Amino acid sequence: MHQFSIGVDYGTNSVRVVLVDTADGAEVASKVYDYASGKAGILLDPKDPNLARQSPAEYIKGFYAAVPATLKAARKVFPRGFDAGRVVGIGVDTTGSTPIPVDRNGMPLACLPEFKKDLAAQAWLWKDHTGHEEAALITETARQNNVPYLAKCGGTYSSEWFWSKIWHCQRSNPKVFKAAYSWVEHADFMPGYLTGTLDPLKMKRGICPAGHKAMYNEQWGGLPAKDFLAKLSPELAELRDRLYAKAVPSDQVAGRLTEEIAKKVGLPAGIPVAVGAFDAHMGAVGAGIKPGTLSKIIGTSTCDMMVSPLSQPLQDIPGVCGIVPGSIVPGMYGLEAGQSAVGDIFNWFVTYLCPAEYATGDRHANLTKAAAKLKPGASGLLALDWNNGNRTILVDPLLTGLLIGQSLHTSGPEIYRALVEATAFGALTIINRFEEYGVRAQDVVNCGGIAEKNPFVMQIYADVLDRPMKVSRSAQTCALGAAIFGAVVGGVYKSVEEAQARMTGVKPKAYQPIADHAKVYAQLYPIYRALHDAFGTAGFQGKLDRAMKDLIAIRDQARKIG
Amino acid sequence: MHQFSIGVDYGTNSVRVVLVDTADGAEVASKVYDYASGKAGILLDPKDPNLARQSPAEYIKGFYAAVPATLKAARKVFPRGFDAGRVVGIGVDTTGSTPIPVDRNGMPLACLPEFKKDLAAQAWLWKDHTGHEEAALITETARQNNVPYLAKCGGTYSSEWFWSKIWHCQRSNPKVFKAAYSWVEHADFMPGYLTGTLDPLKMKRGICPAGHKAMYNEQWGGLPAKDFLAKLSPELAELRDRLYAKAVPSDQVAGRLTEEIAKKVGLPAGIPVAVGAFDAHMGAVGAGIKPGTLSKIIGTSTCDMMVSPLSQPLQDIPGVCGIVPGSIVPGMYGLEAGQSAVGDIFNWFVTYLCPAEYATGDRHANLTKAAAKLKPGASGLLALDWNNGNRTILVDPLLTGLLIGQSLHTSGPEIYRALVEATAFGALTIINRFEEYGVRAQDVVNCGGIAEKNPFVMQIYADVLDRPMKVSRSAQTCALGAAIFGAVVGGVYKSVEEAQARMTGVKPKAYQPIADHAKVYAQLYPIYRALHDAFGTAGFQGKLDRAMKDLIAIRDQARKIG
Repeated sequence: MHQFSIGVDYGTNSVRVVLVDTADGAEVASKVYDYASGKAGILLDPKDPNLARQSPAEYIKGFYAAVPATLKAARKVFPRGFDAGRVVGIGVDTTGSTPIPVDRNGMPLACLPEFKKDLAAQAWLWKDHTGHEEAALITETARQNNVPYLAKCGGTYSSEWFWSKIWHCQRSNPKVFKAAYSWVEHADFMPGYLTGTLDPLKMKRGICPAGHKAMYNEQWGGLPAKDFLAKLSPELAELRDRLYAKAVPSDQVAGRLTEEIAKKVGLPAGIPVAVGAFDAHMGAVGAGIKPGTLSKIIGTSTCDMMVSPLSQPLQDIPGVCGIVPGSIVPGMYGLEAGQSAVGDIFNWFVTYLCPAEYATGDRHANLTKAAAKLKPGASGLLALDWNNGNRTILVDPLLTGLLIGQSLHTSGPEIYRALVEATAFGALTIINRFEEYGVRAQDVVNCGGIAEKNPFVMQIYADVLDRPMKVSRSAQTCALGAAIFGAVVGGVYKSVEEAQARMTGVKPKAYQPIADHAKVYAQLYPIYRALHDAFGTAGFQGKLDRAMKDLIAIRDQARKIG
Repeated sequence: MHQFSIGVDYGTNSVRVVLVDTADGAEVASKVYDYASGKAGILLDPKDPNLARQSPAEYIKGFYAAVPATLKAARKVFPRGFDAGRVVGIGVDTTGSTPIPVDRNGMPLACLPEFKKDLAAQAWLWKDHTGHEEAALITETARQNNVPYLAKCGGTYSSEWFWSKIWHCQRSNPKVFKAAYSWVEHADFMPGYLTGTLDPLKMKRGICPAGHKAMYNEQWGGLPAKDFLAKLSPELAELRDRLYAKAVPSDQVAGRLTEEIAKKVGLPAGIPVAVGAFDAHMGAVGAGIKPGTLSKIIGTSTCDMMVSPLSQPLQDIPGVCGIVPGSIVPGMYGLEAGQSAVGDIFNWFVTYLCPAEYATGDRHANLTKAAAKLKPGASGLLALDWNNGNRTILVDPLLTGLLIGQSLHTSGPEIYRALVEATAFGALTIINRFEEYGVRAQDVVNCGGIAEKNPFVMQIYADVLDRPMKVSRSAQTCALGAAIFGAVVGGVYKSVEEAQARMTGVKPKAYQPIADHAKVYAQLYPIYRALHDAFGTAGFQGKLDRAMKDLIAIRDQARKIG
């Protein structure tokens, strides 16, 4: 008799619920709820382009809307209807780091009338960069005090992460900061809410958000020590006692679905809900990640995930966002890397610089058609993929795009292709960094919109990475990954690996590298790397690493003068 | 009684004839003949983008067409008609270095049936870069042998110049090379032709082409020594005896208009024709060049000319294309610099990358309107103006464009403005080089299409150069300059300076620098210079000076594979 699990995948603009057959991972039904508030679900501040918040109330509304709709759709799939009693567990993934300030009961401040309209009381979405000053101060303070906290997150703390955001709230909106009893990641909040275990001091906290974004590690006793936090701010030090002492992997049960919620959505009460994790991490599980396999989620940006058995020694890897035991697959180190913009760069070109002759109809398709006819290297162009900064391996949001090689005949499709190639070179730089530190990536499994729909890009990736590009069988690997954790906590499988072996796979067609192309890209890559190092790392003669930062400083000044 | 002179200005695509009143430089009439052969007058080779030749027959046809048309137009200007007997002299300027292989009588080989269709037998137009390998070898050989020949042309020999072209002909088309008794610059050929003094061994050769492009200098006895040329090729050494021993300024008479030609075009026989010179050099005279005044001709590319009294000591200036006594104004050093592409870069953007919303109607006007609203520095962008290489101060055709600072919101007008600013920074780099070597440029007089028609560009130039941008009164300074030499050899004035004082001037309105803008550009320029030096000069850590060259090599290889 078939058993089913539910994956709930909270993205940047919507939440997707999938109902999955635990026998083979087949998607039975799926529904999406688009967040109704803000711009595509994001609360913005016209005065501050760094700000991106989200209403936590939408997370709850989305669950109540999409789960019943999914079950309804499932009932239409089977001739004799669908028995929701066969759903054995729920897994939840979310974006992150997306911390939410909560009260003593674990309820988001944004749900209280007093703070409803206060942007600081909302969920601080992963892409909120308001804490960039705080991030730099955290990095500096950690380096000066010779503490190990940055060792597991690449050596540089990011403005996208937990402490940068909370500290920025304390400095910029002390009222909200004081009213917050604790702060909870979106990935922890949802399982807590569904299982009635929201008490911030008792709820289960996931190792994935804790280890990758909050400098949590058992090596140094959990979160960073109080005396270190006190160097940042006494208030942060005090907050530490109201956060958590322990974080656990997602094969553990966060709690059991409350009767009230179960009734409301039509699921059996008491089924287990897995501890939450980030979308890319569960997505990697849904893509079939295992040692030796790199899982790439390629969309507007990328996440590049790897795992390495706990039994094998693993050095800290500079620039890799996190190395956390159990954060992806329990019993293995989870390694997270990524590119800040990929599809976003192609979209930028198409939106702002599409030549008139390619602008009618599907601009991407028009440019792709022309760009696909070009030979590798034949344009003489080379670009850096930094229009939105560099996440891995430089961990520097204050970097910008670069294009060289333009002649008086350089065309739009040539530049479009150079931008695609630039993102591939960025991807190769990440793989190389993993491999330099002994984490081999023989295999690459891709998922996300570009992997699914863009053979032009995928072929260039195969040629530049000089490896076959496999594509995950499921188009919804994040939600599938969450459902896998639902199946594991639901007792269908004893381990994540066992579940993966049954529930994941790749498509029959993989993109194979073309030897002649790979040869040219192997000539181009050292030039990419020379530019990368000159503009992205300190200490070069000519001080080009200052160039992009100085331009940003001049720009910000010029815009304020305006 | 008014006296008149004729200026004949041979450009890249056409020849312009002007009839000028010697009293005040006023243009009485003017006609243009567009070269009829090739693409806009240029003979191309689809297989070799470096090749650009021109039919010498067109030069002769153009004279016969445009002079009578100009005289005809002049007759309509005056109520009682125009007496061609009042024309006292002719000046000729041409592009260069544009050497023509000629027979023993000085006639172009291209005019012989045998060689009519041979591209190597035509005039080798200034922008022909087929001799880039030869240019590099000449530079290397001169440096290794510690000879002074490059000292007066910036330390690097260019592929655009005399010897590179002739040597390339010898290596690539020995048949034409052997058939050529001598080689004659277009600027020398025309006065020779008009005055019946074409014998290569006797004709007058101008100091301007000789000194700026052929390494001629009296310091070392004229052209480079035979033993040096022999190191390049024995054939070049032999050729030296069939070139010239002396070159002279353009206030000297090349000869007198032959009766046959005078009759054909309607001018008095026997009027003097001045020794020829290059367009930019005569253009500088037409713009009123004098010590302390930089003359900029801004069009698809620029020429930046200065003069310095022979009585003042003057060091060799690295990267300045030439320092030649009498090449612009007799009795002064003529200094030539320039940018390989200016208007061509704006045209490139507009042709290949104009966003759809700016593509309807006048693209330049649309982009200019939007770009003019932006504040200096506010885009965060910076570009290098090297899409066609760098003429001054790097003398390197194997450089390419560069753009940095792109975000995910960078717009077309922002890039268009950054390209304009890049050309202004390039202009400033030239001025700075002049001034570092003691040649002050207090004043800048601009002419050419952009100076005439583009207030947006001219204002940015004023702000970046932080100097008022004056504009020459005449819109046709090259032809006016040629006419000034016509007036001098015609005996109207005793010196070029005396003629200039009467016949040249600037427009009432000059573009004044805006202090706030100049301040921002002063912040941006050091970043431009850091990029310039890192990509354009050797010896930097990271070897970025290889980046553009390696990309070109890979490109050329990729295109050949095609």
